[in-house]
Amino acid sequence: MTCCVLSIGTELTRGEVVDSNAAWLSAELTAIGFEVVGHTAVDDHPARIAAACRRLSDSARVVIATGGLGPTSDDITTAAVAQLLGVPLVRDATSLEHIRRRFDRLNRPMVSLNFKQADFPEGADILPNSVGTAPGFGVRLGECIAYFLPGVPHEMMTMFECHVVPRIRHLAANNRFQRRLHVVGLGESVVAERLTGIEGMFVGTTIGYRVRFPETEVKVLAEDTSHATARALCERAVSEVRARLAPYVYGQDDDTFGGTVGRALRTRGWTLAIAESCTGGLVGHMLTREPGASDFLLLDAVTYANSAKSRILGVDESTIRWHGAVSSEVSAAMVQGARRVSGADIGLSLTGIAGPSGGTDTKPVGTVYLAVATPSGPLEIRHRVFSGDRAQIQTLAAYAGLEAVLEVCTRPGSQSSVANGGELRPI
Amino acid sequence: MTCCVLSIGTELTRGEVVDSNAAWLSAELTAIGFEVVGHTAVDDHPARIAAACRRLSDSARVVIATGGLGPTSDDITTAAVAQLLGVPLVRDATSLEHIRRRFDRLNRPMVSLNFKQADFPEGADILPNSVGTAPGFGVRLGECIAYFLPGVPHEMMTMFECHVVPRIRHLAANNRFQRRLHVVGLGESVVAERLTGIEGMFVGTTIGYRVRFPETEVKVLAEDTSHATARALCERAVSEVRARLAPYVYGQDDDTFGGTVGRALRTRGWTLAIAESCTGGLVGHMLTREPGASDFLLLDAVTYANSAKSRILGVDESTIRWHGAVSSEVSAAMVQGARRVSGADIGLSLTGIAGPSGGTDTKPVGTVYLAVATPSGPLEIRHRVFSGDRAQIQTLAAYAGLEAVLEVCTRPGSQSSVANGGELRPI
Repeated sequence: MTCCVLSIGTELTRGEVVDSNAAWLSAELTAIGFEVVGHTAVDDHPARIAAACRRLSDSARVVIATGGLGPTSDDITTAAVAQLLGVPLVRDATSLEHIRRRFDRLNRPMVSLNFKQADFPEGADILPNSVGTAPGFGVRLGECIAYFLPGVPHEMMTMFECHVVPRIRHLAANNRFQRRLHVVGLGESVVAERLTGIEGMFVGTTIGYRVRFPETEVKVLAEDTSHATARALCERAVSEVRARLAPYVYGQDDDTFGGTVGRALRTRGWTLAIAESCTGGLVGHMLTREPGASDFLLLDAVTYANSAKSRILGVDESTIRWHGAVSSEVSAAMVQGARRVSGADIGLSLTGIAGPSGGTDTKPVGTVYLAVATPSGPLEIRHRVFSGDRAQIQTLAAYAGLEAVLEVCTRPGSQSSVANGGELRPI
Repeated sequence: MTCCVLSIGTELTRGEVVDSNAAWLSAELTAIGFEVVGHTAVDDHPARIAAACRRLSDSARVVIATGGLGPTSDDITTAAVAQLLGVPLVRDATSLEHIRRRFDRLNRPMVSLNFKQADFPEGADILPNSVGTAPGFGVRLGECIAYFLPGVPHEMMTMFECHVVPRIRHLAANNRFQRRLHVVGLGESVVAERLTGIEGMFVGTTIGYRVRFPETEVKVLAEDTSHATARALCERAVSEVRARLAPYVYGQDDDTFGGTVGRALRTRGWTLAIAESCTGGLVGHMLTREPGASDFLLLDAVTYANSAKSRILGVDESTIRWHGAVSSEVSAAMVQGARRVSGADIGLSLTGIAGPSGGTDTKPVGTVYLAVATPSGPLEIRHRVFSGDRAQIQTLAAYAGLEAVLEVCTRPGSQSSVANGGELRPI
C-alpha cells in the first residue's frame, strides 16, 4: 500500500527547520508495512496546500500531513482542507472542552485564537491530542484517506501512534519487522563496511544507516510472507549484525546511552559520583533524562572553576598550578574527591578544553582527561583529543565518560566492594 | 522568483535519513532572495523522478535537485532526466579525466561503475565537483532551469555555492530582511494575540511563529523595494513587537537563553553557583554550551542523593527528614550551601519531582522549589508545579531557574557586593 507524507509550514520551505517529522513518519510507516513513495513540503499558502493534497491523494492511498493546526494566523491547514472538500468548518464541542481544560490546568488564559483549534471540516474524523492543544483529523479525499496532525514533534508522534496507526494498520502489508541497533564508537562508513553482504546472507532484509551524532543507528528491516516470519528473519540478521559490530552495539530500539549506563550501574548495585568540568553538566543530564537515576547517582559536581575543584573535591591547589586544570593529575584528584565526598562506589571525572578558545600547543582544544575509580582495581585515566566544535567536543567527551563507566560495570572481573547493598560509607 | 527543492533517494522516503539538504538549500535560497514554495522527496524510481521534475518545472522557475548521481545501480537521476528530455546520454571527456585523477590521488581503483558518473544528458551545463567524484549538471525544462547536485552534503554545498549561486543570483529579488525574536514565558497563542495587527501597521511585513519548547520564536520578515529599505521596515516592526511582548523577549537571531543569562551575569560582574537536583545537570549544560561560561560559573553541584545535599552543601539532615528533599526549606539550604562552599556572588538551587513516579497528593509530579540568593536582598524562593512528561518538567524547571537568575541580574535596584572584581571570598 502506497502512502505519502506532506509537511506544511513556511519554516520548512525557508529552511529554518529540518523536516525531521517526515523522516520519523516514513520510518514508522515503512516499519508497519507501507511503501512511502514521496515527501512533499509546502509553505503556509492555502492554494499550494490544497494543490498538494489533491495531487498526493491521486498518487497514494494514505497521506499523513503535519503542521499548520496551531492557533495563529499562519496556521491555515484546516481551512485549506475544508475549502478543498467544499465543506464548512464546524466547531467541535468535545475538542473545545479539552482545550479549555488544558489551559485551566496550565493556569494560562485561553484566548479567542484558541477557539479555532476546535474547528474541523464537516464530517472529519477527529483525533484527540493528549499532550497538546491542537487535535488532528482525518478526511477522505477520493480513494485516499488523509490524516492531518500537529507539527510539534512529540504531539505528532503521540497522535500518530495512538490514533492513526490503529486506523491504518489493516491497510498495510504487515509482513515486515524492523529493529534499530545503536552503535557508539564506530563511524558510519566503518559500520557499513563491516556489514557488507548481510542483505545477501539474509534475503529479504534491508540495512539502513542513520547518524545521530555521535551515534550510528543501524536499521534492519525484514520483509517476508508474514509478520512472524519477517520477525524471525530480522532477528537472525540482527544477531549477525551484532556479532560483526561487537562490542560497539550498546542497545536497540528505544534504548538510550544514558539509560543503558544506568541499567548497568543498577545491575551491579553500584552508586556513582561524577565530577565534570568541560562537559558542564551534560553527563549528569544524559543519566537523569531517564527516570530512576536516583537509584545510583549520588552526586554530579560540575566544578567549573578551579576554586570549586579545590573546595568541593579537595583537589590540591598546587596540583592545579603545577599540572594545569586539564591534566591527568587533576582528573585523578577530581574523581577521588568526588568518590570520597559522596561515598559513592565508583567515580567518573572529566576535565578538558571544549573551546573555541583556551587551547595551547601541548593541550589543543578538544583535549580531555577522564578518570574512573572503582571499588577494586586501580584508578584508570584516559587522555583523548576530540575534534569538532564546542558542542561536539562536549558530546564526545560525555559519551567517552559514560563509555568508561559502562566498561567497568560490564567487565567480568570487577566486583562491588559494597556488601551492604549500596549504603553510604562514612568518609 | 519562485523555486523548489527536489531530493531523490529511497533512504529519504524510508525515513532512514533526515533530509537536511532540503533545509540547507532552502535557507541559502531564501537568504539570497528566492521564494522557496516547496520541497519534494521521491524514491529511486525513474518514473517518479521524471514526474516530479515535470511537475516542479511547471510550478517554479528554478529547481535544485540532489541525490542519485553516484555510481551504483540505484543512482538513476541522470538517466531519468535524459529520458524526460528525450535526449541521449553523452560521455564528457573532461569529467572522466577528473574522476580518473581523483581515484589516482586516493590510490583507489576506478571501477567500470564510475564511468557512468561522466555521462550527462546531451546539451547539459556540467558543474564540476571539486570535493568528490560526481559532477552535477543543469538543464532547461520548459521555462524552468533545473540543477542536479550530489546528495553528499559537503559536495552538494560546495557545488551549490561555487557553481549554482553565480548562475542564479541575478534571478533573485534581494529585497527582504528577517529577524527572529526569542520569547520565554508566553505561549504561542498569547504571543500571537498580542501581535494582532502588526502586519497591517507595517505593510510589507509577515509575522511567523515557531515553537521550540519551551520557547516561542517570532519571525518578522519584511519585503520592500530594496534590501536596505526592507531592513529599516523590519527593524521598525521589531521595535513594536518587542514593546508588545516585553519583558518576555530575551534575545534575537542566534541568541540562546543560556547565552543571554551568561551575558547578564558577565555584565553584572557576578559569579554564580548552582545546586541542582531534579534537573540533573541541565541548568549547567544550558549555560556551558556557550563558550566563556568560566567567566562566571564557579560550581554546579548536582546533588541528586540526599546524602550529597548534606555532605556537599551542608543541608541539615533533619531539615530533609522533616520537610522532605522537595521543599522550600531544602531549596533555601541548598542555595546557601552552594554559595558558601563556592564563594560565588549569587546562587540558584532547584529541587523537585520530575517524575514519572515520586509524586504525592501534596507534592505532585512537577512540583519544583527554586531559590535564588543575591549579594544584597533577601533569599527568594519560588514554588511552581509544572506539567508535562519528565523531559518537559526538567526543561521547564531549568528555564524557570535561569529566568530567576536573569531577573535578579537585570533588576535595577540590585547591586554587586563584590568590590574586588569577582575574586572569591574565603569561606
